[in-house]
Amino acid sequence: MSATPPLYGGIEAGGTKWVCAVADAQGRLLATGVIPTTTPQATIAGAVRFFQEHRTLTAIGVGSFGPVDLRTGSPTYGHITATPKPGWAHTDVVSPLRSALQVPVGLDTDVNAAALGEWRRGAGRGLETLAYMTVGTGIGVGAVVNGRLMHGLLHPEFGHVRIPHDRSRDAFAGSCPFHGDCLEGLASGEAMRRRWGQRAEDLDDPAVWELEAEYLAHAVMNLTYTLSPERIVIGGGVAKHAGLMARLRARAFDLAAGYPATSALTDPAAMDEYVVSPSLGDHSGIAGAIELGMRRLASPDQ
Amino acid sequence: MSATPPLYGGIEAGGTKWVCAVADAQGRLLATGVIPTTTPQATIAGAVRFFQEHRTLTAIGVGSFGPVDLRTGSPTYGHITATPKPGWAHTDVVSPLRSALQVPVGLDTDVNAAALGEWRRGAGRGLETLAYMTVGTGIGVGAVVNGRLMHGLLHPEFGHVRIPHDRSRDAFAGSCPFHGDCLEGLASGEAMRRRWGQRAEDLDDPAVWELEAEYLAHAVMNLTYTLSPERIVIGGGVAKHAGLMARLRARAFDLAAGYPATSALTDPAAMDEYVVSPSLGDHSGIAGAIELGMRRLASPDQ
Repeated sequence: MSATPPLYGGIEAGGTKWVCAVADAQGRLLATGVIPTTTPQATIAGAVRFFQEHRTLTAIGVGSFGPVDLRTGSPTYGHITATPKPGWAHTDVVSPLRSALQVPVGLDTDVNAAALGEWRRGAGRGLETLAYMTVGTGIGVGAVVNGRLMHGLLHPEFGHVRIPHDRSRDAFAGSCPFHGDCLEGLASGEAMRRRWGQRAEDLDDPAVWELEAEYLAHAVMNLTYTLSPERIVIGGGVAKHAGLMARLRARAFDLAAGYPATSALTDPAAMDEYVVSPSLGDHSGIAGAIELGMRRLASPDQ
Repeated sequence: MSATPPLYGGIEAGGTKWVCAVADAQGRLLATGVIPTTTPQATIAGAVRFFQEHRTLTAIGVGSFGPVDLRTGSPTYGHITATPKPGWAHTDVVSPLRSALQVPVGLDTDVNAAALGEWRRGAGRGLETLAYMTVGTGIGVGAVVNGRLMHGLLHPEFGHVRIPHDRSRDAFAGSCPFHGDCLEGLASGEAMRRRWGQRAEDLDDPAVWELEAEYLAHAVMNLTYTLSPERIVIGGGVAKHAGLMARLRARAFDLAAGYPATSALTDPAAMDEYVVSPSLGDHSGIAGAIELGMRRLASPDQ
C-alpha cells in the first residue's frame, strides 16, 4: 500500500476569478481556494502557491475561459488566444503551471470542463452524449460525445449561433461585438443588462423572462437537432432565475412540434428530464477540471 | 493465402431508390445495382437478390433514410420509425437483411453514412472531425466526431434547426410540415420548388441563389459554432448548382466576422478548403455504407 494516495488539482480559470481545488481519486474536494483574475503572471503565480501550500499532486486540469488553443501539436497549444480580456490575449496557461508544479497539466475550455464534470459526476452519468450550456455574462456550450469532449477546428463557440430574432417583438440590436444579434448577443446576461438597463438578477417583469425563454428554447432545440445529446444541462447565473427553466422547457416542447418522435420531445415529463439544471450546482466546472487532470495523466500524449 | 478475399456489401437506402454495391477490403466497388424503393417487402427482397447473385459477403452496411432507431438495445433497433413515406413507417430494415443474407448488418442514417464515406475515403481523410451536409429534396447532416458517428438521443436532425428568416426579403412561410420555416423548410429543394414554382435545377435567377446561399451560409456557421468540425462537406443535388458554393462561402465568411480567429474564418483561401464539395461525388453514401459493414464486423456488439 502506498502511504500517499494520488491527489489531483483543478482550476476553473474564469475571467474574474480562478477557483482552485485539490481532490482525491474519487473526485472528493479536500481543499479549495479562490484567486482574483488580475494579470496572467500574478494569477498563475497565485494558483501555483495554492497548490504548493496544500498537497503534493499527481496531475492538474484547467478549464479556462477562451478562446483557447487545444490543438495538440500546435505551437500555441495551451494558450488563451484572441480574448478581448485586457492583458490575457496570447497567454500560455499550461507551460508555467507545468514548469512550476512539475506535473502533467490537462486543459480544456471552461464549458467543456463543466460538461465533463456533469458527465462524470453529475446529471450526465452513464450517458453517451451530454451537452452543457452556460448562460451567464456570456453563453457557451461544452459537449461530451461518445465519452469524449468536442474539439475539431477549435472548440464549440455555440454562443455565436444565429437564431430567429423577431425585431417587431424585440428591437434590441444585440450586444455581440462580432455578430450583433447572435444567441449571446440576444440572451446573455450582458445582452439583458444592455437591453433592459438593469442586471439580469434585478429583472422580474414576466415579459423579460418570456423573451429570454424564447431565445434559450431556440438554443436548446438547435443543440438537439445538431448534436442529438441525450441530456442538456443548463448552468450559469441567468439560468438560476426562478421559473426560467420551466418556461424554456415549455417553449422548446412547442418548437419541437413532436419531431422527431422521441419521448423527450413528445412527453412533457420526459422533457423535464431532458433539459435540467446542473446536479453539481456551481461545482460542475471544478469537478470537470479535476477530471481533466486525471485524463491527462491517463493519456499523456493527448 | 485465402482463396476468397473478404467482400463487403453496402446499401444506400433512399426514399426513391436503393443503391447496392459490393466492394473489396480497400473499398473498391466491384458491382453495383439500383432497386426502386416501392414497398418495404419488395425493396428489401430486391436488395437480397442483388447480393445473393453477386458474391458471398462478409458483412453489409446500410445508410438509410430516416428517422431510424440506432439505439442498440432498443426493441425497435434497426427500424425506420415515424417516416411520412407511405408504407415505410416502423419498418425493420436490419432483421430481414440479416436473416436472408446471414451476415452482420451495420446501420446508420444516410447522411451519417455519407459523412463516414467522405471521412474514410474522401474529403475528410485524416481529420478528427467532419460534418457532411446534404442539400437535396431535404436537408440533413451527418458528422464524425473523434472518429465516431454521432447518435445520442436519436441522431442529428440538422435540417430542422431554425435560422434567421427575414420575411421582408423572403415572404415564403416555409415548407416543413412540422416547423414551417426551419432550415429545411426554407432552403431544401422542396422549399425552393414551392417558393418559386419550379424545380431547383430549372432556376437560374441570381436572386434565387443569393437567397439560397444566405440560408446555407447560416447553416454552415451554425454547424461551425456548434460542432467545430475541421471541414464541412456539402453534397446533394441542390448544392451542385454552378456558383452556389462560392456564394455561400463568401456569405459564411462575412457572417463569421473573423470570430473565432481561426484561419478558416479569417482567410478566404482557407475557407475554400473548409467548406468543400464531396471528393467522392455521388459515391459518398455508398462508400460509407460499405464502411458501416466493415465496422459492424469489427465491433459486432455495437
